[in-house]
Amino acid sequence: MPYRSPVSDILFSLSAVADLRGLLERAPQADLDWDAISSIVAEAGRFATEEIAPLNRTGDLAGAAYQNGAVTTPDGFADVYRHWAEAGWNGVSAPAEFGGMGLPHLVNVACTEIWNGASMGFALCPLLTEGAIGALKAYGSRELLDAYLPPMVSGRWTGTMNLTEPQAGSDLSAVKTRAERADDGTYRLFGQKIFITYGEHDLAENIVHLVLARLPGAPPGTRGLSLFLAPKLLVNADGSLGARNDLRCAGIEHKLGIHASPTCVMVYGDNEGARAWLVGEENRGLAAMFVMMNAARLAVGTQGVAIGDRAYQRAVAYARERRQGRGLKGGDGMAPLVEHPDVQRMLMTMKANVHAARGICHLTGVSLALAHHASSESARTAAADRAALLTPIAKAFSTDIGDETASIGVQVHGGMGFIEETGAAQDMRDSRIAAIYEGANGIHAIDLVQRKLPLAGGETVKREIAGIREVAGDVGAKGGAGFGATAARLNDAAGALEETTRTMQQWLASDPRSALSGASQYLRLFGLTLGGACLAKAGLAAEALAADGAGHELGRVGLARFFAEKVAVAAPGLAQAIASGGAALEPYEAILAESA
Amino acid sequence: MPYRSPVSDILFSLSAVADLRGLLERAPQADLDWDAISSIVAEAGRFATEEIAPLNRTGDLAGAAYQNGAVTTPDGFADVYRHWAEAGWNGVSAPAEFGGMGLPHLVNVACTEIWNGASMGFALCPLLTEGAIGALKAYGSRELLDAYLPPMVSGRWTGTMNLTEPQAGSDLSAVKTRAERADDGTYRLFGQKIFITYGEHDLAENIVHLVLARLPGAPPGTRGLSLFLAPKLLVNADGSLGARNDLRCAGIEHKLGIHASPTCVMVYGDNEGARAWLVGEENRGLAAMFVMMNAARLAVGTQGVAIGDRAYQRAVAYARERRQGRGLKGGDGMAPLVEHPDVQRMLMTMKANVHAARGICHLTGVSLALAHHASSESARTAAADRAALLTPIAKAFSTDIGDETASIGVQVHGGMGFIEETGAAQDMRDSRIAAIYEGANGIHAIDLVQRKLPLAGGETVKREIAGIREVAGDVGAKGGAGFGATAARLNDAAGALEETTRTMQQWLASDPRSALSGASQYLRLFGLTLGGACLAKAGLAAEALAADGAGHELGRVGLARFFAEKVAVAAPGLAQAIASGGAALEPYEAILAESA
Repeated sequence: MPYRSPVSDILFSLSAVADLRGLLERAPQADLDWDAISSIVAEAGRFATEEIAPLNRTGDLAGAAYQNGAVTTPDGFADVYRHWAEAGWNGVSAPAEFGGMGLPHLVNVACTEIWNGASMGFALCPLLTEGAIGALKAYGSRELLDAYLPPMVSGRWTGTMNLTEPQAGSDLSAVKTRAERADDGTYRLFGQKIFITYGEHDLAENIVHLVLARLPGAPPGTRGLSLFLAPKLLVNADGSLGARNDLRCAGIEHKLGIHASPTCVMVYGDNEGARAWLVGEENRGLAAMFVMMNAARLAVGTQGVAIGDRAYQRAVAYARERRQGRGLKGGDGMAPLVEHPDVQRMLMTMKANVHAARGICHLTGVSLALAHHASSESARTAAADRAALLTPIAKAFSTDIGDETASIGVQVHGGMGFIEETGAAQDMRDSRIAAIYEGANGIHAIDLVQRKLPLAGGETVKREIAGIREVAGDVGAKGGAGFGATAARLNDAAGALEETTRTMQQWLASDPRSALSGASQYLRLFGLTLGGACLAKAGLAAEALAADGAGHELGRVGLARFFAEKVAVAAPGLAQAIASGGAALEPYEAILAESA
Repeated sequence: MPYRSPVSDILFSLSAVADLRGLLERAPQADLDWDAISSIVAEAGRFATEEIAPLNRTGDLAGAAYQNGAVTTPDGFADVYRHWAEAGWNGVSAPAEFGGMGLPHLVNVACTEIWNGASMGFALCPLLTEGAIGALKAYGSRELLDAYLPPMVSGRWTGTMNLTEPQAGSDLSAVKTRAERADDGTYRLFGQKIFITYGEHDLAENIVHLVLARLPGAPPGTRGLSLFLAPKLLVNADGSLGARNDLRCAGIEHKLGIHASPTCVMVYGDNEGARAWLVGEENRGLAAMFVMMNAARLAVGTQGVAIGDRAYQRAVAYARERRQGRGLKGGDGMAPLVEHPDVQRMLMTMKANVHAARGICHLTGVSLALAHHASSESARTAAADRAALLTPIAKAFSTDIGDETASIGVQVHGGMGFIEETGAAQDMRDSRIAAIYEGANGIHAIDLVQRKLPLAGGETVKREIAGIREVAGDVGAKGGAGFGATAARLNDAAGALEETTRTMQQWLASDPRSALSGASQYLRLFGLTLGGACLAKAGLAAEALAADGAGHELGRVGLARFFAEKVAVAAPGLAQAIASGGAALEPYEAILAESA
């Protein structure tokens, strides 16, 4: 299947769902209009389609290889990475002062989807670099910025994120990696980190590790963590590369998917300690790391969308070509799979879910942008709160959708889906990590309920639901017959979300078990409802374009309807499941006891 | 994780859900009582736990290997297979006249779960042999039975099922393999078959292929298919093995999972044609193949249960051991994962779904047995109809549950779930085929709606729903407080199923698109409702045992409650989705059109 970056779907969503076009028109930025952004996204799509996508299957087959501390990426990766960095793509959202393009974050969200859809194994390297750039920029000293950011923005050097240790995964309070103060104001690191994406590789001249570690006498728990920068090769005063630092890759993991992306065990301080520089203040490392993690969460959600779209493209192409059984249209021969209603249901479920998740990611991205650029303080605060509310949904809902979509994609292929050469199985394997890393999805559900529902005294979530109601109202008032029962189902879902939100808010104080045990189902309920609103907005925009004689996108109306009538109808059931509270979980010891 | 065959859960379900113990007491069979069956199942569990389970991971890593027409199974497979066959396990349900144990089919269902839970890659070989034995026994001539069944029942020879061709997957009407009549009353086969499980291997002395092919002048479509037996090695009159037949394995597939099980491309008739014998009548091959397929469908459903239980065992063991974060119980240190409500939710969802699916498989198995052994003609007919109704649910619901459970298992493991050495990823990869082979699940959903709802003028499904209502009534009348809202939720689900069934029955004549587009959601609705009833029956039985002072199984009450309150609550939403009909799918061409 020739994969094509979904450029026009992405642009439509940026414009119709996230209102980027309107924002740019209302608050023009120098040298940046909708046409410029469209061109950039289209060019990213061209590059990804032509140069990155061909690496996806070969990268999976070959995988990254480890020998004696060195990691070799699959054939072609180094060349394509060089072309890609030379074209400036590594710096899409990086500040112009360090050589970046300084484009709005939403453009970066679009590009993140594009790179990951083409090859997640490839795209992970720049994704981590981008996170490291963000954390450095927010907390690094001027000297660190000047020394490290220009080569990281250009892509000559890459970045990593060293959090996890064997005993410290979701719970970073258990981090043991030790930092010692050296006489010259630098630090020395000793310890082992695991699951370090692109911790070692052959794509770049240097690798800049950001490492969470604990200083002597630091408070216990996460309040005693500091963030350090430790380069693979030490950097001389003139910016040239010096000696090898005392850190190494001790091995890479044998994983279910993303085989091209080396997942490294990193060892710091075999000898005198890895030379490192403090980023931000001592014992405030987690705050700096959170900058990296927040951007990464949206990016990982976007990976779910990306793989989902890839899986959908593959499935719909196969369903048009493969003929089995009689179709409803009759005729003598076998009908293409796509003519069978059950296959239509699968394909539409894939597409609708992916578009819904993309809309949520774009809403999150625009909120992040407005949190920095809105014209008033109150607007910036409201946008920041909205971004905070939506980030766990963007991360967890989208990555669950990625998994489900990839699995349906396998199913559409029938027996061929289980054969690796088809590629559908790879989509499923690659996708599976996204619901796990950057915080397992259950943790985001808890974050949503515990930390995000109380934002602005509950106003943030209230406003979000009101926005959904407004879309439902618009569909009812303005939508054509093609919307079917969209308005009614969307209102049902919004009602279920509203009521459940109130219940959750009460439980936060009175009954944490009930709140926690319903968190994942609540996040799903939120995703379905908000996703339905995103699709409905896109459908309304498509109708408006059609009325202007400019649109040929009326499938978007049907997509909104399908999602509302066939998918989002799960909302009331989820609400009921949550409403029954935590009582059913209380006897968990008896329920989970071994009876064999 | 040391896997243990879930013997006591299986026995509890056979007794409490499928009422096997009661049936045996009411209609005693010679030399066979509940204690004997319990011993056999326990002994199967011991063998599987000790001898087969250790092959699961090594078999995945090594995989089956192909070279020059020969297939080598992973180290240890041949030895364990020989022990297993020598112990008589291959003939559990085979007729005693050919050397089998002749045990009730339900015992075989229990054993099928046990072998597949230990290693699906290993268990597939006997699974296919069993299907071939069934088809031969039903349709083979006396001569074929005498020549082939004894070594197949003993396991010295294995069997295969050759249906699929590149252009003929779900739709067998497109089968092209050609059969020619020879002068001596035998036939010659020419053609290529794909996806042939254990089509070639080194476990047995001979391989007996059952092959669907088309005779010259046969009617088009499936009414022109005949079934043939073609052995790998020709069999002399005295039963000894003779020359190699003109058939060969041309390669094996590189698959997502079940790596130990060779999936073969088989070529028949490179030269003079593969020598073959007709099974049954000419052009009636599909009927004979259906015997094989029907047994195989329940067996594949059981595979879903088996892998689901394996994934659950692994996840709950990990969740007890791994510590991350603070638990609700408080305390200074990190709590085991199992103390976190969201993890409890995941583990209970796994266990409840697996037990629900197991109950459905057992109900199907007991119906198949009663279809042969019930005392009256009308009872046999009713049981056959019930088995026919439940088979698609047992197959498709259980295998979907297998996939979902294995995926949740990966999630419970966090980052370790994505690392192959943990084994959770293998469960997910192995499981994925079960929803595809033996008819992709969407086809079973259509079978359920189109062919099974009309059975006995709709009486069969009506009786099934009445049975569910009865269980709900029993819970309401007799169940203790631990059942929570089980009765109410089960009644809600039964009501949703009842109403949707009526709608479906009307649509079958008037609106096939609506019926077909809702088929998969209908099957899910049925599975949730019937599965909830199975769990409730088990819970009631556990309470009764506890009242007798004999039970310590009260977790089963909690499991029924959890499923009713947290899982089966999806039923009304599914009903609503189905009720909206096929209109949302009609504009599928516009919805699926490429917009990029």
